[in-house]
Amino acid sequence: MKIDGLAYRSIWVDRADGWAVHILDQTKLPWTLEVLRLIDVAQAAHAIRTMQTRGAPLIGALAAYGLCLALRADASSEAMERDAALLGATRPTAVNLRWALDRMLTRLRNTRPNERVAAAYAEAAAIADEDAAQCEAIGRHGLPLIEAAAARKQGGRVNVLTHCNAGWLATVDWGTALAPIYAAHNAGLDLHVWVDETRPRNQGAALTAWELGKHGVPHTVVADNAGGHLMQHGEVDLAIVGADRVTRAGDVANKIGTYLKALAARDNAVPFWAAVPSSTIDWTLSDGLAEIPIEERSGAEVTDVTGREADGTIATVRVVPLESSAANPAFDVTPARLVTGLITERGRCDASEAGLRGLFPERREA
Amino acid sequence: MKIDGLAYRSIWVDRADGWAVHILDQTKLPWTLEVLRLIDVAQAAHAIRTMQTRGAPLIGALAAYGLCLALRADASSEAMERDAALLGATRPTAVNLRWALDRMLTRLRNTRPNERVAAAYAEAAAIADEDAAQCEAIGRHGLPLIEAAAARKQGGRVNVLTHCNAGWLATVDWGTALAPIYAAHNAGLDLHVWVDETRPRNQGAALTAWELGKHGVPHTVVADNAGGHLMQHGEVDLAIVGADRVTRAGDVANKIGTYLKALAARDNAVPFWAAVPSSTIDWTLSDGLAEIPIEERSGAEVTDVTGREADGTIATVRVVPLESSAANPAFDVTPARLVTGLITERGRCDASEAGLRGLFPERREA
Repeated sequence: MKIDGLAYRSIWVDRADGWAVHILDQTKLPWTLEVLRLIDVAQAAHAIRTMQTRGAPLIGALAAYGLCLALRADASSEAMERDAALLGATRPTAVNLRWALDRMLTRLRNTRPNERVAAAYAEAAAIADEDAAQCEAIGRHGLPLIEAAAARKQGGRVNVLTHCNAGWLATVDWGTALAPIYAAHNAGLDLHVWVDETRPRNQGAALTAWELGKHGVPHTVVADNAGGHLMQHGEVDLAIVGADRVTRAGDVANKIGTYLKALAARDNAVPFWAAVPSSTIDWTLSDGLAEIPIEERSGAEVTDVTGREADGTIATVRVVPLESSAANPAFDVTPARLVTGLITERGRCDASEAGLRGLFPERREA
Repeated sequence: MKIDGLAYRSIWVDRADGWAVHILDQTKLPWTLEVLRLIDVAQAAHAIRTMQTRGAPLIGALAAYGLCLALRADASSEAMERDAALLGATRPTAVNLRWALDRMLTRLRNTRPNERVAAAYAEAAAIADEDAAQCEAIGRHGLPLIEAAAARKQGGRVNVLTHCNAGWLATVDWGTALAPIYAAHNAGLDLHVWVDETRPRNQGAALTAWELGKHGVPHTVVADNAGGHLMQHGEVDLAIVGADRVTRAGDVANKIGTYLKALAARDNAVPFWAAVPSSTIDWTLSDGLAEIPIEERSGAEVTDVTGREADGTIATVRVVPLESSAANPAFDVTPARLVTGLITERGRCDASEAGLRGLFPERREA
């Protein structure tokens, strides 16, 4: 997608040297557009763990490129397995991380060590290109939902609510939840996005608002508390969110707070969709609430807020008394019963095992 | 209640001069305990409008004392009606404001101007004393709910979730939602409070956490997004919130986000109670969603966050791109069907007209 008219992806290989991996430091957005140059696996793992790069699909792509960097240092099988495990342990909830590493290892285990680096870069590039293509397809398959809402409103402005950032910054390009929004905006539909702030890390306020603004999509930031009220008053025509892991039964693990919005959507008959590339589907799991591990992050993400002072200085302020502590579960699970449907690169389906198997008949696990 | 061992109310008349009104500047908490001395009606109105004082019951008490200050300057009927209207227009959602002013005017309209100041101070003091007594009674009537939860857990720690600040800072003393919590803590029950941060103004993180900490009640701050997840995992035994207005049918207007927590409570069979003195009940309204005016506050409360830098400086940082704007509805309405019951100074009742009229048989309006 574009930033001030220039086309970007969220991850790319250095065009000059052909091997260093470049990402945008998302912890610096929206205030500074800073490109990070990663040259070893430790830097790649650090970037995932500290959320310089985040978003389930993009984490998968960076893990794949991280393994490329690892193999440049040591292409032995022992080192490869060790470094893949290191990368796999950086975040627990997004399944794309494991999916990408499994795919890389499957390709590389039967490749001779001296051919692994080239094979790894080719596979990582394929993962990245496929992700961009899948997200573009998600946009195409989600567009009719927004067109239908526009038709229901007889041409009136369509209001879409989204939570967290499932835009191009969370993927290689286009995004998941935002792909249909970009597709609709590009098609000329009159569209407005309610952007949940998404405490505690403010990915909505910082990243989604920035993305949409740079692309020219009308949007308004609201506190995470506001979505139910907006739905009660007819101000939301549909909700679209991304996901970090979807079980084969259609349960959706996504940023903490998604479940609350799904409850409000159900209570107000607002369609609630999750946009997911197939790499986000965990075919081994059925019961999301019982089986998906939920990352517990530092309470400091709740007690401390970083932003921009009036003079442009980036500062961190504490918003909780020094004597009080905070808990920080990073994701929650929305049961399939609350999800209107899933938007995948192959089309839309019910949030159910039957729905998913209808789109992905080749999956036989579990 | 107590701050570092000293007994405080949230509003009091200067003991030396007998007329200036003192409040705590709640916009400075939790970082600085600053007492404001209000000497005219403009200062009182400003304190309500800018939320130096907030909380539905306390707003009512300050409006009453604000009218006292107004009458000291001009006790004519014309000025009294004008200044009451000025105070009444400061905030739209809390009904206690109108209730307190109506009570003052009823008392003062038939009082001769030269006797009005003394009568007004007496009536305002009665309003404040009654509020403290009612909140203490709410604590007494709410305590059995926490005792019952403790019994269900066979002596295990009881986890209560609350939203915003409905503590003693929101009333004259004791609080509404926090009154049963203080009563249970004082009675020696093993209790822990999940404190919703309560964006955008962070009344939970700043005020509730501060209150509970100063009183020694174990608590943990969480993002507003987290409550549903905690309930899904059995980490919440009951939820208690305050209210800014309750219709005679039991619909509860409270801080934005309350509705989302009520939905999650219903979905997880967690009891969800609203604690309200009778001054919060609006007997003239039945349909909360259609009839209760919801205050729209400045988007700057969403885009800008104030807190404490590591060196102790109080600073404000922007968390939303400069090009993006924000919307800020301050309250939402939780339909009575999602409310387990109401805790009033006369006891508990169903959130319904029958329930409320059972406790308040003398009400005949509407």
